[in-house]
Amino acid sequence: MRSGHLTVIYLWLYALFAATAAQAQSDPLPSWNDNVAKQAIVEFVQATTDNTKPTFVPPEERIATFDQDGTLWVEHPMYSQVIYCLERVPALVKEKPELKDIEPFKTVLTGDREAIAKLPMADLEKILAATLTGMTVDQFEAEVSKWIASAKDPRWKRPFTELTYQPMKEVLGYLRDNGFKTYIVTGGGQDFVRVYSESTYGIPPEQVVGTAGGTTYGYGKDGKPFLTKDPKLLLNDNNAGKPEGIHLMIGKQPIIAFGNSTGDKEMLEYTEAGDGPRLSVLVLHDDAKREYAYGPANGLPETKVGTFTQELYDEAIKDGWIVISMKNDWRRVFAD
Amino acid sequence: MRSGHLTVIYLWLYALFAATAAQAQSDPLPSWNDNVAKQAIVEFVQATTDNTKPTFVPPEERIATFDQDGTLWVEHPMYSQVIYCLERVPALVKEKPELKDIEPFKTVLTGDREAIAKLPMADLEKILAATLTGMTVDQFEAEVSKWIASAKDPRWKRPFTELTYQPMKEVLGYLRDNGFKTYIVTGGGQDFVRVYSESTYGIPPEQVVGTAGGTTYGYGKDGKPFLTKDPKLLLNDNNAGKPEGIHLMIGKQPIIAFGNSTGDKEMLEYTEAGDGPRLSVLVLHDDAKREYAYGPANGLPETKVGTFTQELYDEAIKDGWIVISMKNDWRRVFAD
Repeated sequence: MRSGHLTVIYLWLYALFAATAAQAQSDPLPSWNDNVAKQAIVEFVQATTDNTKPTFVPPEERIATFDQDGTLWVEHPMYSQVIYCLERVPALVKEKPELKDIEPFKTVLTGDREAIAKLPMADLEKILAATLTGMTVDQFEAEVSKWIASAKDPRWKRPFTELTYQPMKEVLGYLRDNGFKTYIVTGGGQDFVRVYSESTYGIPPEQVVGTAGGTTYGYGKDGKPFLTKDPKLLLNDNNAGKPEGIHLMIGKQPIIAFGNSTGDKEMLEYTEAGDGPRLSVLVLHDDAKREYAYGPANGLPETKVGTFTQELYDEAIKDGWIVISMKNDWRRVFAD
Repeated sequence: MRSGHLTVIYLWLYALFAATAAQAQSDPLPSWNDNVAKQAIVEFVQATTDNTKPTFVPPEERIATFDQDGTLWVEHPMYSQVIYCLERVPALVKEKPELKDIEPFKTVLTGDREAIAKLPMADLEKILAATLTGMTVDQFEAEVSKWIASAKDPRWKRPFTELTYQPMKEVLGYLRDNGFKTYIVTGGGQDFVRVYSESTYGIPPEQVVGTAGGTTYGYGKDGKPFLTKDPKLLLNDNNAGKPEGIHLMIGKQPIIAFGNSTGDKEMLEYTEAGDGPRLSVLVLHDDAKREYAYGPANGLPETKVGTFTQELYDEAIKDGWIVISMKNDWRRVFAD
């Protein structure tokens, strides 16, 4: 019976190996620890894609929306787009020298970070308007392309587009592999994010909803038409503006949505408001070592960039939303 | 040598039959006569999808935009959406009886078509605002769904959604089969067209760009959130509003576009403005027998609904756009 025993052992080893290999191969979220958050996402995808279940959702209704700053990539100490705007000021002053002695451009030109950080919101808005509007759509795209390819985050000394969260990129891919259409719904500028969304997240420009201004159609001297970016705001894609923007740009309610701050609250509520299975998820930045820690939910430090209030945390828990602990739920934060 | 002769004849007959069968099977546009318009569309698709040619366009840039009224379905004697608004007035007055004696609602309630046709634009705008805004997004969708399923065109006594142009539906399918993403870009209401775009044209709501108003996010007594349609106009998707809307909602330039009136001029110019192969197409309604005839281009009758001016016709010819003669280029207009 010795050879019989060996056969059993071989079969058992083979089965063990095969199962492990299959699990390793098929784990769609390898950068996640096997906690509640990962389980909830996997169960949601299984429930909505299995057409033998009453929770099945047809592919055309599988809409997934993701906030960007703080949900898909780093937003601290300051939103990348604001850094872009500040770094554009020297080039702007070169084009319009009269701005050199006018505030807030004068302060920005000094490079004094402390003074710049203290600029009031009205001054910041002047800088945003001057650097995000007034040029043609094509010029803007070229300027952002050039900047995003060379600018570096001061802490990690790496391009901003490399500071995306690997666990969230796995979620994007996992959802797409299961027939979901993934959208970015960002408070950031729609035209800004569209420049790098495809190469960074695999999300094409037409699936980016963001804060958007108007444009004006006109003709050049050669008779060729072009669009100029206006300072007129069409959509402030924050807070209630997120569901309003989703209706305007997509016309369907998401069934799964990810955010990380109070500005995402209404998008998550709107996601939950429909019938059938729904999942709302918030990223909590509680990992000062690997990234940043801010709240003030759960006693985390206060912040003005990506505020996650205790009130939002309580609403999430009460309504059965998932709160991701970056520290405990993510095996790693970045790709390497 | 007799049997050799027979073999040759058989082979020749077989080749002839096979070629005819293949052609019949593969003709993507069977409702089109083999004129310039059909040839231009087929040549454009072949040029942009053959990756051995310098004119190849990668799938993500194959954006095709279509005006709706007069390009995809009948717009005469009046846009379907305006008929919807007029037919909504009795239900509206039932909800708000104080409107009964107020103009222009009073005139609409009389049912006097001649008087209704004479209402000034400002009055028509009051009717549009009262019937297209003020309700929740879900209520509006339910009302339009119900109406579109039962309302009938007075001439053909058939639902409006059956009065789509069969040749254009073939173009939509042909482009999609070749990796193009097809969009409706309409002066009509975005929320209105989205209700039936998928079932009528195979175009999902998120690929409908139209005239759009804002919405306001709020909560019901049960705490459940909903969106209410505002009278505030965000996008007037006509004329220059078409390229502006395309930039806002898609963020890419079309490489092929179809329209039928002066309101589509800027969309077609914008389509032509990019590099690489481009095709702009206009439908000319010169078929009073099978549909309608109006211009005033080419001496066709004047109209206020879907005006195609001589100036637009001349621009089209000068710039190498294709003008479809409904009468000569379409083998049939409707599916049956």
